[in-house]
Order: sequence, then structure tokens, then C-alpha cells
Amino acid sequence: MSTREHTPALPNEREQQVLDRIDKARRRRPKVREERITLSHGSGGKATQTLVEAIFLDAFRNPLLEPLEDAAEFTINGARMALTTDSFVVSPLFFPGGDIGDLAVNGTVNDLAVSGATPLYLTAGFILEEGFEVADLTRIVDSMRRAAEIAGVQVVTGDTKVVQRGKADGCYINTAGVGVIERQGTLGIATAQPGDVVLVSGPIGEHGITIMLARGELDIDADLESDTAAVHGLVASLLDAVPGVRALRDATRGGVATILNEVAKAAEVAVVVDEKAVPVIDEVRGASELLGIDPLYVACEGRIVVVVDGDAAEDALEVMRRHPLGANAAVIGRIAQDPPGLVLLNTTFGGTRIVDLLVGDPLPRIC
Amino acid sequence: MSTREHTPALPNEREQQVLDRIDKARRRRPKVREERITLSHGSGGKATQTLVEAIFLDAFRNPLLEPLEDAAEFTINGARMALTTDSFVVSPLFFPGGDIGDLAVNGTVNDLAVSGATPLYLTAGFILEEGFEVADLTRIVDSMRRAAEIAGVQVVTGDTKVVQRGKADGCYINTAGVGVIERQGTLGIATAQPGDVVLVSGPIGEHGITIMLARGELDIDADLESDTAAVHGLVASLLDAVPGVRALRDATRGGVATILNEVAKAAEVAVVVDEKAVPVIDEVRGASELLGIDPLYVACEGRIVVVVDGDAAEDALEVMRRHPLGANAAVIGRIAQDPPGLVLLNTTFGGTRIVDLLVGDPLPRIC
Repeated sequence: MSTREHTPALPNEREQQVLDRIDKARRRRPKVREERITLSHGSGGKATQTLVEAIFLDAFRNPLLEPLEDAAEFTINGARMALTTDSFVVSPLFFPGGDIGDLAVNGTVNDLAVSGATPLYLTAGFILEEGFEVADLTRIVDSMRRAAEIAGVQVVTGDTKVVQRGKADGCYINTAGVGVIERQGTLGIATAQPGDVVLVSGPIGEHGITIMLARGELDIDADLESDTAAVHGLVASLLDAVPGVRALRDATRGGVATILNEVAKAAEVAVVVDEKAVPVIDEVRGASELLGIDPLYVACEGRIVVVVDGDAAEDALEVMRRHPLGANAAVIGRIAQDPPGLVLLNTTFGGTRIVDLLVGDPLPRIC
Repeated sequence: MSTREHTPALPNEREQQVLDRIDKARRRRPKVREERITLSHGSGGKATQTLVEAIFLDAFRNPLLEPLEDAAEFTINGARMALTTDSFVVSPLFFPGGDIGDLAVNGTVNDLAVSGATPLYLTAGFILEEGFEVADLTRIVDSMRRAAEIAGVQVVTGDTKVVQRGKADGCYINTAGVGVIERQGTLGIATAQPGDVVLVSGPIGEHGITIMLARGELDIDADLESDTAAVHGLVASLLDAVPGVRALRDATRGGVATILNEVAKAAEVAVVVDEKAVPVIDEVRGASELLGIDPLYVACEGRIVVVVDGDAAEDALEVMRRHPLGANAAVIGRIAQDPPGLVLLNTTFGGTRIVDLLVGDPLPRIC
């Protein structure tokens, strides 16, 4: 006799494959197969996910960490708060539109913002390489100051370490941030459901391509700037005006494609994206083609992905477009039932393909 | 006519020198004289202080940062909280008595504890070098897990970055921590006053000397272990039992001497230390002599310095000695009026000398 009370109808072969895959992923305790860390472990893609699940999640297992959202949420004496951290190792340190300093502030501000928190206080930890120019450090810190002012946050505590020449790359910065969650309800990618709509707040990939070009290794000249910006204002307008928002993410490392995969897996839904609808400026499209990278995987540092109740999608689009950072917002796809766990792209050529997590890392040290 | 209403009596020459020095330091906006970062900027000594004051404090100036305590304190919806951060770049990563993992947890737990906060939540940011062994990372994370369990904190959010070979040194970790302050009153080194007594919770310098010896560059064999430990329990016992505690610090980078200098400067008092009374185990004393380092400057990672009202000193000593981490606690000195801003050491040879901030960095990458 079967231990299962309900025997499901036999699925067709394709469905069975998908079901098997998900079931296997659930049962399998992931393992890092490599003996040594590779750059792809830092890509935000498949290798990063395995590393996080196999090593960090397994060791630190606790209910606050497990949702693997951009920030952890907790309550102290009735105050609902969010806590997040990010290290920044971008190379080069200075690039058109920004530097590691404003990136480090905006990145953490954005992680708090997309968790529905009002960003308040930041920490700043510097790892400096012996020989780093004090003038460059001053410039970076000044840029952090300006970014913090714009975002309305305060850097309240910090730390500086110095390592010998050849043991870092000029300057690495870690920021952690605390915010307060003042709105009711909980945002989370696991709440996405069929019928929901997916939006982005603007053209994608500008940050990542700017960094690649700033390295000067490629003979491409493009008039391009990083999109680094603090999205807390955009997020606040959206959440205040549109009650149907289910989840927000900033599309950094791994790009929009990675976020959509996380949504598909966390909510056990399909995400169906219309390639034509994804806003990409010509310079990014051109450079991406030359680099052989899909812009969907390229990091932004001031763009958000929004999952919203289908009925509220028009409102969300309108509210976002009214904000300077969302002027070119667009609906790019929708949530469907099947196949759960996958991101499907309806291509401009009329076909459909699966958009999977990145396996390698075509763009190391982008943030 | 003088703008000053009261003309002070002319001080003697020595007092005048000290007064001039303090006055100058107050008026001078500090400047980093070096064009490039040196290891001494990470020592915790004079160069670090100048860097922090000239670059970070100047840019981020705000009332929460300015006390330059180990953690910043703020209130959200009535909940009094502390936030702190530290990056860890210790070399080697594994050493007798611990590794970078428990060090990173204990360090941040301790910064919260000495601020009077109950440590609650930690973030963990990893910067890994391409080629780093996954087995070593697993060992480090496991050690963080155990340290977090002992300290009663949860690692609730994290981040992993990977940089190319030669751009880091295996593994750097940043931890930030949030704690809640449940006791009334404010601890702070600026509150130290003449008549107060200075204690340490145990023998000093074991961590720093252990690291130096673990590098294997010196032909010294000593049976020594790092003192890395979470002092939150010791601190809680002390604060619960002794209302006269004015300030607590964990004596990490720069050692006890650096802490005492910070007390002298913040409170504008003199700190008078009795060298004979400072607990130092034989192995640390021996190795320090061979290395030409004063144990007062050597980092501990599980020892606290306590400034307490003179009347409560005996109580404090007794309470600390009852705790396993304070079994060898000792009174090492007292706070005096003059000369303000200086630390004086009554040496075992009957002389008195000024214990200044470190100028160089004899022990780089100790934490």
C-alpha cells in the first residue's frame, strides 16, 4: 500500500522532468563540488547559490537567514527592523557615473529599501592595501558622504584595516545597514503568484557594462555611465501608492535574470519574460553583443525588479514613471503556474527559451 | 582688554607644554601627512587615529559617530540599540586557540558587549581569494557557527565576494552586529574621572603573541593560545552587580595602552598605571622581550579594560574574578587629574614614563 493518500495523475514526460528536477533539488543537500573557490562562486549565479546553501545556510541555519532575502528582518522591543550587509570589491575603483564609495552606500541602502525598510544607519569597514593613495581614499570617502546625504542615512561606525602590498587591490569596502520597517505587511519573493506582473524600473545593464568598459581591456568606446543610485525614494513612492506590491529586488550581481530565477524558485512559479519589453539602451545592447553577454545577466546598481498583483500593475507602472529613477520603467513579464521554478523568455525572434542561473562569471568584480 | 574673563595663574614649564599640546591638538584639524597608506594606518595607534579623524570623522561627522566608541548607539521606536562593525584580516587564518571565524564573531560580540548592549544579530561579509580551499572555508564557517552559539547571537544575513588570485590573502571577513541596550545609563570613556580605578579582566597580550608565533617567522617556541572569547557574559555580570562602572573596552588592536590613551584623551584625565600590577603570563613576557614589544601594546581578543568608580573597584574585581573569563582580573591603575590626556606608567624599576600611542605597527594583521 502506498504511503501517499492521493496518487497524482501521471504527468506527461516534460512535466515529469521538471517535477523530478525540483524534487531532487529539494531533497538534495547541496554540495560544493570544487575543492577551491573560483571566481564563479562570486558571480551571484549557480555556484554562489550552491556555496551559500551548502556552507553558510547549513552552518548558520536560523529562521531569519533562511528566506535569503536582501535583508534580514527582526523585531526589537516592538520595533520592526531590517539588517543587511554587502562587501564591495569593484575594479576599477573609479568609473563613469560613480566609484566604490557611492556604490557601497547605495548598495546597502537599496538592499534595505527593497526589503520595505527605511534606511537609517550604515557601518563602513575598509580594507586598504599598503601603498594605496590617501588622495584616492579621501575621494572615495567624500563620495560616500554625498551618497549618504542623498539617501538620508548616517555612517555611524566604522573600521579600517591595512594589509600588505599584493594582499588586496587598493580598497575594499563593506557596508552594513539598519533600517526600520514602518509599513504593514511583508514583502518577499516567495509570495509571487500566477497572475502577478513583473516590472523593471528602467533600462538594465548600464552599471555592469560601464565597469567592463572602464577596465580598458576592450576596444569599445561607448557613452555610458553606471546607473548607481539610491532607490529608497522610488520604493517608498511605490509602496505608499500601490498596496499590491508583492516583492522588490535590486538587480545587482547576476542581473535581472538571477532575480527572476530566485523568484521562480522561491515561489515555485514560472516567470515568463517578453524579451522585446525589456528596456536596454543601445550602448548596452551593442557592448553586450560584442562581449557575448545577455544584458539580462548584467548588473544594475540603481534598478529594481517589482513583482506586483496583476490588477495593480498599471498603477505601479504609473507611479514608478513619475519618479526620476523610474521614468523608463516597463512591464517585462508575468508570473505563471507552469513550469514551476523556471524563467522562460519569449525571444524577439518568436521562440521561447529557458533563462537559467549563470554558471560561470563573465563579469567578475562588478560591485 | 582680554577677551577672557579669568586669567589663569601661570603654569610651570612642564604643565605649559602639556596644555599647549592638548590645545594644539584640539584646534588642529588633523591631516594625513603620508601620500600613501602604510601598515601603521591599520595599527590602531597614532596613524590610525589621524586617518580616522582626518578622513572618516571629517566626512561622516554626526553625533552618533563622534564619540568614536566601539559601537554607535541609537534609538528606534523607543528601543535603544547599538551597531558596530569590524573587518578581520588576521594572518595566519588558523592559529592556536582559534581562527579568523571565531575571531570575527567574538570581536563584534565584544564591541557590542562593552557598549553595554546585549549582542543579538550579526552580519557576515566574506571576501575570498580565487583558489582558497573550500575545506578551509567550511572550517572557518563552522567555527563562526560555534562562536555564535556560545555568544547567543545569530548570523542573519551575509555576502560573499570573490577576487582574483593575488588580490586578497585567502579569506577576509567583515562582521557587523546589532545589540539591544536594556540597562539604564550610558557607558563611555569620556566619563572617566579622577579617583576612578582601572582594571583588566585577565593577563594581556596572549592573542597578539600567539599570532606572531603562529607565523613561524620567529624561532620561538611557546605554549601559548589566543585568548579569543566572547566577553558578553562577563560584562553582563559586572554591569548587573556594580553600578559604578563608567566605561568598558575590549583591548584588541593596539592593546591596553591604546585603550588607556583613548580614555585619557576623551576624558581629559591622566591614567596612571602600575606596571607591576599588569597581569602578563611568562610566555607572553618572554616572547615580547625577544620581539622588543611592550605587552601593553599587544592585542587581546577576550580581555576587557574597565574604568570604575574608586569606591566600587573592590566589588568589580570580586565580580569579575567569579567569572571564568575574569578569574585573573586585576586592578592596574587609576585615573588622576594631571597631566590631562596622558598615560603614565610607574615602572617596575621605580621610574615613571609616558605610554604614548603606537607610531608604527610592530604587529600587523593581528585581527
